[in-house]
Amino acid sequence: MTDLRTSTAPPACADPPAEGNAAPSDRVRLRRKRERGSHERAVIDAILDEGLIAHLGIVDAGGQPFVVPTLHARSGDVVYLHGSAAGRAMKTLATGAPACLTVSLLDALVLARSAMHHSANYRSVMLLGRARAIEEPARKRAALEAVVEHVVPGRWAEVRAPTDKELKATSVLEMTIDEASAKIRTGAPVDDEEDYALDTWAGVLPLHTVAGTPQPDARLSADIAVPGYVSAYTRLRAA
Amino acid sequence: MTDLRTSTAPPACADPPAEGNAAPSDRVRLRRKRERGSHERAVIDAILDEGLIAHLGIVDAGGQPFVVPTLHARSGDVVYLHGSAAGRAMKTLATGAPACLTVSLLDALVLARSAMHHSANYRSVMLLGRARAIEEPARKRAALEAVVEHVVPGRWAEVRAPTDKELKATSVLEMTIDEASAKIRTGAPVDDEEDYALDTWAGVLPLHTVAGTPQPDARLSADIAVPGYVSAYTRLRAA
Repeated sequence: MTDLRTSTAPPACADPPAEGNAAPSDRVRLRRKRERGSHERAVIDAILDEGLIAHLGIVDAGGQPFVVPTLHARSGDVVYLHGSAAGRAMKTLATGAPACLTVSLLDALVLARSAMHHSANYRSVMLLGRARAIEEPARKRAALEAVVEHVVPGRWAEVRAPTDKELKATSVLEMTIDEASAKIRTGAPVDDEEDYALDTWAGVLPLHTVAGTPQPDARLSADIAVPGYVSAYTRLRAA
Repeated sequence: MTDLRTSTAPPACADPPAEGNAAPSDRVRLRRKRERGSHERAVIDAILDEGLIAHLGIVDAGGQPFVVPTLHARSGDVVYLHGSAAGRAMKTLATGAPACLTVSLLDALVLARSAMHHSANYRSVMLLGRARAIEEPARKRAALEAVVEHVVPGRWAEVRAPTDKELKATSVLEMTIDEASAKIRTGAPVDDEEDYALDTWAGVLPLHTVAGTPQPDARLSADIAVPGYVSAYTRLRAA
């Protein structure tokens, strides 16, 4: 079990290798391969785009951190955030305070033969920076469109667009993606060599986010059909 | 669209009510009912127990927040956390620095007739406090058991237990649940009264986390069957 962004295990080679000197370096190599960091924008962008929600970290004047779930959207080199102008997170962010936006995807549970080597396959991005308020109405509208389309692709064209009054009452912020890293774990459990002889089942249990049956609003006319982008909704990973 | 913990919408009543004075108070009442906070321990505990991962917020010496995904477990009045003793988050926490642990469950997408009233049904808990390192081996072991059982109930009895050496190499921390709140949104979209006449589909699209087909480790003997707690794995909500 593990802090998903540190290491999957206590230090390797705490015990003498069971099969000679080659074994520990092999295990280190495997672990390094299975949990890796990346600063590649393509990797970072794919995680930001697939994740439905972000967790936003801010700090109050007394040094207390707050972590708030929020909807987001990436567009090019920025991530948009928005919420009620009255919200604590938005107010703090709008002052230019340092922030951290983290998006995590839990792909699988990793069941090892020993308790300590249990882990999870995941992909996460941590983005550090300061947010800027977007004031210009056209840019604000574009950011809101990005957020709606991030959550339900195809939706924006069918909904009543924001009025000028609504735009004014809403804060929209952006963070530039310039200090970001991804961390990813993939693959099988990595057990201590001597534990492979145990008769405990070991392997990977994939997890998926799937949509259930759409529930029409009680006030919806019976003749309004469920749109295809709702009935066929999927959060498939990028290929 | 929304910061999931603030409000689902810009301030109500920005426009004159379409149906007289009763309408706005009705909308406020509905919104209050659909997105509500709670300090009830039963509500908080159920969310901490169902959520597979937590997002942990810490602050570095320069005031920069970091939000780190991590595995956790609740046991009675505490939440356990653990990871490599070398990890940044664990090192910061062990100094008694203020922390925020947030667990979020995304239950559904809420599709309103207007862009601005799109939202999400979710349950989240925010726990503030300072973590304490657990040093006593027996308590450390019990905490690790809680984390393994939190993620895969039934697993602990089948795996090789931690050795004393492994326990020493691992940090386990606990946070007491004494400053915590839950926030929950449920139910249908809440549109402006005049938008109910639009012919846009509106409703709720439920989301679920489901397990795929277990993938046995390549080095597993063919005669070791998949345990029932893996093949029937589910993250069903508490009733």
